[in-house]
Amino acid sequence: MSSSDIFIGEIIGTAVLILLGGGVVAAVTLKNSKARGAGFLAITLAWGFAVMTAVYISGPLSGAHLNPAVTLGIAIKDGVWDNFGVYLAGQLLGAMLGAALAWVAYYGQFRSHLTDPEIIGDQAEKPIEGPHNGSKAGPVLGIFATGPEIRVVWQNLATEILGTTVLVLAVLTQGLNDEGKGLSILGGLITAFVVVGIGLSLGGPTGYAINPARDLGPRIVHALLPLPNKGGSDWGYAWIPIAGPLAGGALAAGIYNLAFV
Amino acid sequence: MSSSDIFIGEIIGTAVLILLGGGVVAAVTLKNSKARGAGFLAITLAWGFAVMTAVYISGPLSGAHLNPAVTLGIAIKDGVWDNFGVYLAGQLLGAMLGAALAWVAYYGQFRSHLTDPEIIGDQAEKPIEGPHNGSKAGPVLGIFATGPEIRVVWQNLATEILGTTVLVLAVLTQGLNDEGKGLSILGGLITAFVVVGIGLSLGGPTGYAINPARDLGPRIVHALLPLPNKGGSDWGYAWIPIAGPLAGGALAAGIYNLAFV
Amino acid sequence: MSSSDIFIGEIIGTAVLILLGGGVVAAVTLKNSKARGAGFLAITLAWGFAVMTAVYISGPLSGAHLNPAVTLGIAIKDGVWDNFGVYLAGQLLGAMLGAALAWVAYYGQFRSHLTDPEIIGDQAEKPIEGPHNGSKAGPVLGIFATGPEIRVVWQNLATEILGTTVLVLAVLTQGLNDEGKGLSILGGLITAFVVVGIGLSLGGPTGYAINPARDLGPRIVHALLPLPNKGGSDWGYAWIPIAGPLAGGALAAGIYNLAFV
Amino acid sequence: MSSSDIFIGEIIGTAVLILLGGGVVAAVTLKNSKARGAGFLAITLAWGFAVMTAVYISGPLSGAHLNPAVTLGIAIKDGVWDNFGVYLAGQLLGAMLGAALAWVAYYGQFRSHLTDPEIIGDQAEKPIEGPHNGSKAGPVLGIFATGPEIRVVWQNLATEILGTTVLVLAVLTQGLNDEGKGLSILGGLITAFVVVGIGLSLGGPTGYAINPARDLGPRIVHALLPLPNKGGSDWGYAWIPIAGPLAGGALAAGIYNLAFV
Repeated sequence: MSSSDIFIGEIIGTAVLILLGGGVVAAVTLKNSKARGAGFLAITLAWGFAVMTAVYISGPLSGAHLNPAVTLGIAIKDGVWDNFGVYLAGQLLGAMLGAALAWVAYYGQFRSHLTDPEIIGDQAEKPIEGPHNGSKAGPVLGIFATGPEIRVVWQNLATEILGTTVLVLAVLTQGLNDEGKGLSILGGLITAFVVVGIGLSLGGPTGYAINPARDLGPRIVHALLPLPNKGGSDWGYAWIPIAGPLAGGALAAGIYNLAFV
Repeated sequence: MSSSDIFIGEIIGTAVLILLGGGVVAAVTLKNSKARGAGFLAITLAWGFAVMTAVYISGPLSGAHLNPAVTLGIAIKDGVWDNFGVYLAGQLLGAMLGAALAWVAYYGQFRSHLTDPEIIGDQAEKPIEGPHNGSKAGPVLGIFATGPEIRVVWQNLATEILGTTVLVLAVLTQGLNDEGKGLSILGGLITAFVVVGIGLSLGGPTGYAINPARDLGPRIVHALLPLPNKGGSDWGYAWIPIAGPLAGGALAAGIYNLAFV
Repeated sequence: MSSSDIFIGEIIGTAVLILLGGGVVAAVTLKNSKARGAGFLAITLAWGFAVMTAVYISGPLSGAHLNPAVTLGIAIKDGVWDNFGVYLAGQLLGAMLGAALAWVAYYGQFRSHLTDPEIIGDQAEKPIEGPHNGSKAGPVLGIFATGPEIRVVWQNLATEILGTTVLVLAVLTQGLNDEGKGLSILGGLITAFVVVGIGLSLGGPTGYAINPARDLGPRIVHALLPLPNKGGSDWGYAWIPIAGPLAGGALAAGIYNLAFV
Repeated sequence: MSSSDIFIGEIIGTAVLILLGGGVVAAVTLKNSKARGAGFLAITLAWGFAVMTAVYISGPLSGAHLNPAVTLGIAIKDGVWDNFGVYLAGQLLGAMLGAALAWVAYYGQFRSHLTDPEIIGDQAEKPIEGPHNGSKAGPVLGIFATGPEIRVVWQNLATEILGTTVLVLAVLTQGLNDEGKGLSILGGLITAFVVVGIGLSLGGPTGYAINPARDLGPRIVHALLPLPNKGGSDWGYAWIPIAGPLAGGALAAGIYNLAFV
């Protein structure tokens, strides 16, 4: 794969991932959406299918990492760091593009939701448990970035590490399961259900970023977009969904190199 | 494939698609249906499995386009326009046939629902937000055709374009993922989950037509059927689920030819 | 396949199908079940996975028809009627065995549910819409057999015919999709989702028997079991989930032989 | 496979299984979890994807039994008992590790839930139906171990036997379905949906252990963890989710050797 194919593939794939992933949170939470109230299962299934769709679309171009933690895990496993920065740049740009497109798709819903006095009032009064950095999560930040239900730094980090370790371990072992039979066409489907499983099982405390680009890119877009009453972007939390997933990706590669080689 | 195989295959496949797709909306919304209130997740999953079933049944005959946006995207990608009109004619006829069959399957439920004074009254009072063309959506139009929660023409168009671009891009890249290994038997399954994902993620604003035949055919049948108190067929909106998906299919083909070839 | 393998395979497979299929309706409806109220989507998904599990278990022995409508469709398509009666006998016996096992698995729940005065009272007062044969559906008959929400004979028949036509057409075209590549291991998975789709989309009016053995076998067991306050077995309806699916299987074979050969 | 690979593979795989499986019950039941109230369908889907993820991760090392009932069934089927104890030891240790990790991931939620006076009070007053051994199920025991809704020893045993027989029969017949085509990469996916099906259909009475390690390991961890107000570990019930699944595994192997060979 050429660097330009990787760059373009990761932009397109991560944009699709965040368009659909951010989209479903908008769909389930915003006023005047047909999917409002569809629940956590709908959100986690849609994130899984977002991963699957993005993997199939970008796979032929870039191998479909779509996640700096995956890129890091593969680099450590193989000891090859070519195009490392190209992958990460594509992922961050793609995530920003996808978040902007999700906002376009739900433009009227954002406007209607954020100008409803009742919704704004409810949200403003919602207490955030535990010590935090003073930035209050705005009413629609959850469509863009993740946040903890209870702020306990070590736990929030641990939950992100655990989820990402499982994800990257499952990605790294796919080659072993395939045994050269060229069935990698199944990989995206299986990865989708791995992500649904992690979301349902480990998403409760922090909303499972398990992907630094997935969290940082849309958080930047949230800070930039001219949304009325959008509140803060909770930058005090932003390092956790970066550090945790990267640590999880590295840990998975370490387990792989120790136990599977 | 002969033209007659294509024509018959697209009629059968699109009829199955709309029988099951229209069926699930009837199942979830109509009075005296065992599935009443099963929710948005049930609707989107069933539409996905409707696509899958239709793809497997019609695939051997016509290649299972089932959607003018897919036919347009493939034609632009390949630069081949043979049978273009045959595909579209089969799709529209199939969609009309499927909508009529869904009405047969739910005959008693339609009658019971549309003669319930409380349901008719509730529906009549429901305001439609935003400027629109004066035709009021009847109480069961949603079983046949799509409609926006908020009428903002550019957003409604954009949402349909985005959803269809993702769909057609995923269809066009399937050949690249398969790499000649003949695993296309998986294609229908993967496409099903792509459609579920688009529905959950981008279905909130407009109900995701992402297929001109899926919207126009059943809308015509709604206009023709002797349903009591059925209300208008909202023809003022009908061009959006035609123009948006066609633009999305063309856009996907353009992205494919620029980035993937 | 020998006749004895077919007979044993269909007994085991159909018993698994009805143990799991009857089981999920018990799980979702009976008092003191952890799954009570899990909803129609849970029921349809579980029926799909019941089909899948039964197909994989019995496939190597009997080819996993598990359904007289499938056996009829295959016989008409191929013009081969060997073992026709063996298949049907195995399917009916298996369905009866499975229904009895589901009762064993939910023994305490049946007892607790059927001796609750409030549940019995509620059920007795529930009116059945439309003209019917005087037998009143008992409170747990739905765990064993299907029944219509609205009794309109031609519609009830039509709904069962439509659902079974789609099912058997999807089964008959699997060989065309496989193209000799031996991927039939996927068949059970795809059939599972076809059944989930039919259930969600066409299950609203009659509860989608789409299989004569699935309805008749458990209905006989309901009539035989010593359940307190179980009510009638609604024998007046019992011919519809036999005749409808058989007609659908024959119709599918006819469409196949006309359009696909 | 070497004994050390088997031991390590089963530890990693069963730890992933219980981290995700215990995790989803925590996610759906604990206070301050984003998934609270997501329902029984979410729980059963996540347990299925937990099995799938664990199978793909540990398959290349140990063949991914992850369940003493599966190990027993394979040993009886093949008449080979090498590494039998290694499998069981790895499974039990892995299950304990996974339960401890699930507690780490939900640390704050456990604390918040178990110190909420209303939750503790509600739980203490909840009567357990039927005769039992005097140990009262604590408010979060269900995150670790299974328990019956109604205590009827023979029924509880029968339900676990039936569920495990279906599971192990499906595992044993996978080789027959594959027919040497090397598609075992699909095995984990199909097993996942078998487990979802068993959970939805037979999980109502006892919560479907269908795996002695899955129940015993986390129950030990529950007894050891310093959780406030955690209540008893219900040791009087603990033999049923051991004996039932082992009997089911043996029964499945017997059916296999009689009918399928």
